[in-house]
Amino acid sequence: MDRPALPPDLRRALEASVGSDHVVVDPDLLVAHERDWTGRFGGATPALVRPADTAQVAAVLAACTRAGVAVVPQGGNTGLVGGSVPRRGEVVVHLGRLQRLDVDAHAGRVVAGAGVTVARVQEAAAAAGWSYGVDLASRDSATVGGTVATNAGGIHVLRHGPTRSQVLGVEAVLADGRVVSHLGGLVKDNTGYDLAGLVCGSEGTLAVVTAACLRLVPALPVRTVALAGFADAPRAIRAAGRWRRAVSDLVAEELFFDDGLSLVCEQFGLPRPLRATHDAYVLVEAAAADDPTERLAEAVGADPEVGEVAVATDAGGAERLWRYREAHTEAINALGPPHKLDVTLPESALPAFVREVRDAVAHLAPDARTWLFGHVGDGNVHVNVTGLAPEDDRVDGAVLELVAAHGGSISAEHGIGVAKLDWLHLNRSPEELAVFRAVKGALDPDGTLNPGVLVPPG
Amino acid sequence: MDRPALPPDLRRALEASVGSDHVVVDPDLLVAHERDWTGRFGGATPALVRPADTAQVAAVLAACTRAGVAVVPQGGNTGLVGGSVPRRGEVVVHLGRLQRLDVDAHAGRVVAGAGVTVARVQEAAAAAGWSYGVDLASRDSATVGGTVATNAGGIHVLRHGPTRSQVLGVEAVLADGRVVSHLGGLVKDNTGYDLAGLVCGSEGTLAVVTAACLRLVPALPVRTVALAGFADAPRAIRAAGRWRRAVSDLVAEELFFDDGLSLVCEQFGLPRPLRATHDAYVLVEAAAADDPTERLAEAVGADPEVGEVAVATDAGGAERLWRYREAHTEAINALGPPHKLDVTLPESALPAFVREVRDAVAHLAPDARTWLFGHVGDGNVHVNVTGLAPEDDRVDGAVLELVAAHGGSISAEHGIGVAKLDWLHLNRSPEELAVFRAVKGALDPDGTLNPGVLVPPG
Repeated sequence: MDRPALPPDLRRALEASVGSDHVVVDPDLLVAHERDWTGRFGGATPALVRPADTAQVAAVLAACTRAGVAVVPQGGNTGLVGGSVPRRGEVVVHLGRLQRLDVDAHAGRVVAGAGVTVARVQEAAAAAGWSYGVDLASRDSATVGGTVATNAGGIHVLRHGPTRSQVLGVEAVLADGRVVSHLGGLVKDNTGYDLAGLVCGSEGTLAVVTAACLRLVPALPVRTVALAGFADAPRAIRAAGRWRRAVSDLVAEELFFDDGLSLVCEQFGLPRPLRATHDAYVLVEAAAADDPTERLAEAVGADPEVGEVAVATDAGGAERLWRYREAHTEAINALGPPHKLDVTLPESALPAFVREVRDAVAHLAPDARTWLFGHVGDGNVHVNVTGLAPEDDRVDGAVLELVAAHGGSISAEHGIGVAKLDWLHLNRSPEELAVFRAVKGALDPDGTLNPGVLVPPG
Repeated sequence: MDRPALPPDLRRALEASVGSDHVVVDPDLLVAHERDWTGRFGGATPALVRPADTAQVAAVLAACTRAGVAVVPQGGNTGLVGGSVPRRGEVVVHLGRLQRLDVDAHAGRVVAGAGVTVARVQEAAAAAGWSYGVDLASRDSATVGGTVATNAGGIHVLRHGPTRSQVLGVEAVLADGRVVSHLGGLVKDNTGYDLAGLVCGSEGTLAVVTAACLRLVPALPVRTVALAGFADAPRAIRAAGRWRRAVSDLVAEELFFDDGLSLVCEQFGLPRPLRATHDAYVLVEAAAADDPTERLAEAVGADPEVGEVAVATDAGGAERLWRYREAHTEAINALGPPHKLDVTLPESALPAFVREVRDAVAHLAPDARTWLFGHVGDGNVHVNVTGLAPEDDRVDGAVLELVAAHGGSISAEHGIGVAKLDWLHLNRSPEELAVFRAVKGALDPDGTLNPGVLVPPG
């Protein structure tokens, strides 16, 4: 794609706002911000702008809106649906310099700038004797701004809810530069519309998040991990449901299958985790102030449908068991860029979906293969498909239509971005989409903020 | 106030939509719906309309919008800020006939019509082996529609969050009759703006809630209640903070003072709950699957600032201790209609506020008396003032300005309604209020829904 030019007036205005050092137009420096890390989504930008604080973000947005130039807010650029990269010449507004981090150890909350990474929030929380309720593989790159804007999920939604559940308030800048800020952090606060909740999950289309007040949760220092093998998926899914109803200490419940496990063991030279081979596996983690092993072992050990189980009560053993689950992404990527679809199914529909989605994909091409894994505790399945050309998007339609037919969500935690825009109608009625457009029009009437993302054209 | 007339064309349209039996114009039947239960807020309505289902709600709203007649949605009419009664001739749309109630015992959630009471949700949850996370004194009258529309709080926010935390999705009707519905109940669902969260707490100004999908929480059958006396408010507030950080089983933490306790004992002929007289009292309840008494007693009994403590481990004893807290409202009302202000303070500011608010009120009039009680676990204080004329609203300004000066919220759980509209600027900036107006304008461009409530004129 040809790189669009930055209008000279806008360049002067941006340089006046953030300093010329922070208006980057060198193509060599821009490329890293023009494509997402899957490599699937991206375009060219005329400039990357790096404001240092909220006032500079406001000046940048106001200048872009006046110039009629659209912007894409960017944090750690770990999004998976094409929402944080330029697509049609947007200016990239990078929030990396917003590094405010104030911990209130007494109240158990933190005010963090948009550019602070999730890992840094976690560390600050731990240092204050608390924990942050969100954890995800991209923790060292993903930022507060990006995870709030996309309502990021991760492995602890089962226990603590998604990012929206942590957000006590946000500070955000509207397209015209007005700042809306509500960072007082009061849990009980019925003083009007929940703007924080509206901005959370809006994928940069309504306002640019510059800071958030996040609740912290009690630290749960003692953890136990169990890995159980099952004869088939329905047994595994049923057992996972029983455990999360019986054991209140669960923080994660993950599902994977023998094909994925075999691939992981092969690619990383790992021993198989259990003596026998099983069709389906559930990895379950409990964490508490005291030792949850007995409570977890009671549920897992006594379960009539478990084939075999391994339990790790020390940190090293827990990491070893988690490795079998976490290495799935890397192992599958090594086969070539997969199609990745992140969906939620109602618990009752999950066994049928697991069976039917493999069939649906197999029909698309002789080499097409389905890899399934995910957060079974939330009904969240990551469907990875290899053996198809990257541009072959028949698989998106086939999988997402099956999800919708089972009452599921076509996006569990990654969002809509541009990747799923064509399928949003499967989950959202024309009336809901009209409301999306009305809300977008009310907050960003000029369409400056992340055009083409999340809100389908009318 | 003169009763406005219902335009004949609109009457015909409403009767065609819901049947003539459900378009009530008899003044004798209307009066009960024209004033709130505090008696402070109300006006006259030309008609009460009782739709039977969502389609009828849609037809009613479309007809009113076409006729240019505003509406007030009404559920149990237990609101305390004047948001659920007609003020300037609005038609009252009563949701009491929307009685759908579908429990998913396996998944732990319920889909409930707007007219279902909180008590009925609680009963249905209990019958399915679960619990509903919201409880409040008006449980037998307050409805799902009203509690969702106002993001109702109550005594268990400390443990389960406010109503918004329970809402997995809503069905609602826009002013023009379009229905937006998202009742699938998936926890992980990032398919666009959080319309449910936006409608929750919008006080009937954006859409009329017709149903909600509500999460249920695990039943916590074993409960223990302790009542502790303290030499002063700062000691009580500090201890309450320590306990909720140390005891994860807490479900409620309430604060009251000796003047309120003495009034309750006197009016209801109750014995004093503790041997000695103390300045401040904290009532704390723990609930769990197993007996939480030891964990609670360890924290409360070992606390160095407690003067004296009573513990109840049986239901009868627990009810007796709760009675001292719950009877405050009735005992104070018996002195004459109080000014009631529901506010949140940051924990660190609460001791100073408790001291200063009494002084601020005492300056207003020689007979003015301040009664304080509330949900100390959330920083939520109910400020009741007696000895002032009902129309003397100097007290609202005096108290709410003090709240704002301490970084608090002028509405913890009751909402803004019309009662606090003049003070909303204390908590919300001109930019935030402009966003409120923009969102309102986008969803209800004709201003049909609950005009004059929550959104100040521009």
